[in-house]
Amino acid sequence: MIGNFIYHTPTTLYFGKGAIRDLPEVLGRYGKRVLLTYGGGSIKKLGLYDKVKELLRDFTVVELSGIEPNPKYDPSVITGAKLCREHGVDVILAVGGGSVLDCSKAIAACALYDGEGWDLISGKVQAQGALPVVDIITLAATGSEYDMGCVISHTALCDKRGYLDEHLYPVASFLDPEYTFSVSKWQTACGTADAINHVLEQFFAAPHSLFNDGVMISALRSLMTNVKIALEKPDDYAARSELMYVCSWGCNGILANGAGYSGWPMHAIEHALSAYFDITHGAGLAVITPRWMEEILSDRTMERFVTLGKDLFGMDGAAPEVETAHRVIAAFYDFFASIGIPMHLGELGVKADKIGEMADHILSHDSTDEPWMFAPLSREALIRILQASM
Amino acid sequence: MIGNFIYHTPTTLYFGKGAIRDLPEVLGRYGKRVLLTYGGGSIKKLGLYDKVKELLRDFTVVELSGIEPNPKYDPSVITGAKLCREHGVDVILAVGGGSVLDCSKAIAACALYDGEGWDLISGKVQAQGALPVVDIITLAATGSEYDMGCVISHTALCDKRGYLDEHLYPVASFLDPEYTFSVSKWQTACGTADAINHVLEQFFAAPHSLFNDGVMISALRSLMTNVKIALEKPDDYAARSELMYVCSWGCNGILANGAGYSGWPMHAIEHALSAYFDITHGAGLAVITPRWMEEILSDRTMERFVTLGKDLFGMDGAAPEVETAHRVIAAFYDFFASIGIPMHLGELGVKADKIGEMADHILSHDSTDEPWMFAPLSREALIRILQASM
Repeated sequence: MIGNFIYHTPTTLYFGKGAIRDLPEVLGRYGKRVLLTYGGGSIKKLGLYDKVKELLRDFTVVELSGIEPNPKYDPSVITGAKLCREHGVDVILAVGGGSVLDCSKAIAACALYDGEGWDLISGKVQAQGALPVVDIITLAATGSEYDMGCVISHTALCDKRGYLDEHLYPVASFLDPEYTFSVSKWQTACGTADAINHVLEQFFAAPHSLFNDGVMISALRSLMTNVKIALEKPDDYAARSELMYVCSWGCNGILANGAGYSGWPMHAIEHALSAYFDITHGAGLAVITPRWMEEILSDRTMERFVTLGKDLFGMDGAAPEVETAHRVIAAFYDFFASIGIPMHLGELGVKADKIGEMADHILSHDSTDEPWMFAPLSREALIRILQASM
Repeated sequence: MIGNFIYHTPTTLYFGKGAIRDLPEVLGRYGKRVLLTYGGGSIKKLGLYDKVKELLRDFTVVELSGIEPNPKYDPSVITGAKLCREHGVDVILAVGGGSVLDCSKAIAACALYDGEGWDLISGKVQAQGALPVVDIITLAATGSEYDMGCVISHTALCDKRGYLDEHLYPVASFLDPEYTFSVSKWQTACGTADAINHVLEQFFAAPHSLFNDGVMISALRSLMTNVKIALEKPDDYAARSELMYVCSWGCNGILANGAGYSGWPMHAIEHALSAYFDITHGAGLAVITPRWMEEILSDRTMERFVTLGKDLFGMDGAAPEVETAHRVIAAFYDFFASIGIPMHLGELGVKADKIGEMADHILSHDSTDEPWMFAPLSREALIRILQASM
């Protein structure tokens, strides 16, 4: 069944080799003063920085560089918003991965808000608008280029928040797979693990439909197949183009229109891990995934595991259901290990003595124990998942 | 591989039981003067007419009723455009199936054009704008509710045209599966056949990708499974909701972003059939489909048939390819026959003596023999398809 939903994604995707040729025309719709945001030097090594500056020769460009992974409210968002106000910026151009784009979305909202920006991000105040954001994405992962969300960390509060608002959809996203050829094996694996997790967060929900199940399983198959090709041959355009496109579908709900919202419990857990230990998001998700699956396996969720076993992994439909479920869980564990992700949180720098504190943090920030969730997680369940993940 | 594309669908979908409660708020964004368009009396029998009038009690409503299947430029489009101009209409509300909506889209463009409206529809002049169109769709079929196209017939010219323009996307589409419970078996079958054909027109194209193939096969599986349930039990909400949702994806390109445009050859052929004999669009497509498949089967297209055989029909991957292809073609023939569609054009009223004339018509209107097409069709090929379909 397809349940009730309202769906609209205002973002225009410009996809493919050479797509950024349309950048000046697109930016020009919003004005002539651009805040160009990026991270470290990778876009300079790619030659993308020079290319963008050349395309923007008729624009006034203000720059904000050095945006960090797990982008921080202080200093990045605060600084960016201040630059927008000081220079009367018309449009933000984010060039880089999901962190740069997420930070730019937060800047876009905070720039038009007179109070403390964190009040928007933490949900205390609702944004009345945001500057338009255009992006050139250089990493296939978060899907931020096609959704209305961003994730921002507040170091002083030890807080990492998912911030969702209709105003945060990019107006246009440029996706050229060639810009992902130089992405490291580690980032390629972690980005794909992130996207796989986005699909699974939506797959484990109700109601189901034959159509959405097939779309999500197709996304999983494409991600799991193409990441192996890209790791082997980083400049394989076909593989990189599928990874880039499928990742963009991760978070805008299109994969599961009319399926209930699951509450995205694995993301709730991972946000605590990243807030406490600043680990790579996709790696944290990969480690949690099989342990979360073990925890939620029940009569109620069994059908989801069996469908994955049959339709994704081609397992024998006649096998006992619980056996299939455990084989599915093992298959995800083995898959993530096979693409080079260490499958224990300890290896990522997480300390076991913080598990109780993180469980409390998760419950106070994301309420993973709501009865409406597909598989609610109590404090004890969270602790079991984290302990098993160590 | 995902090839280059630009993708954006501005339409907002309001999906599910009771969704039309939001209608006044949505229409109110555009103004207070509404042209309400519909066909025969079916929306009155449904109680939908009264419900809509009640929801529109604070609006000024002008009505255009009697819009026919295969909607005609003269009188429907001409009359509707005149009404819009005379009454200063702000927004068009189409209530009904794809024909009502297609007609309303053409009205929306023609209302803002001072010259002869057919010049827009026939592509001689490009529209500079269109009135906003909102729809309540009561038939799962064309996908017009989520695309920028309409198909309009010009009786005097014996012409049936697909008219595509960015201005023709509905601004909002209301899809309540309950309004399709009373759709007849014939219309349910033909609507689904239309949607299946939309997927196949996009599946037989290049380049392919693992992801898009999976999405399209999921669409086919959902349509083919759920139509049987809906024919058996017309008020099965789960089946009707999947049919309605999947049909809406048919024509906006989302099923095959980055796959090349195939040229939609089966639609080119069917438009000639409908223009000459006013047959039901979905029925015409169903009859043509297996004959078109036989005609285009070649070394170049073989892989597409084999993928359908393996992934849609679960056929043995080890069988000889050409055997699989013929089994796929037979499976589609049998499927359409099983949902009650007569599989010979003669049964639909088509006369064999017009085949040559129709082949000329197809080539002059849709140029199915372009070398860029996935499977170009010469005049001889068109004649073979039509003859085999008789």
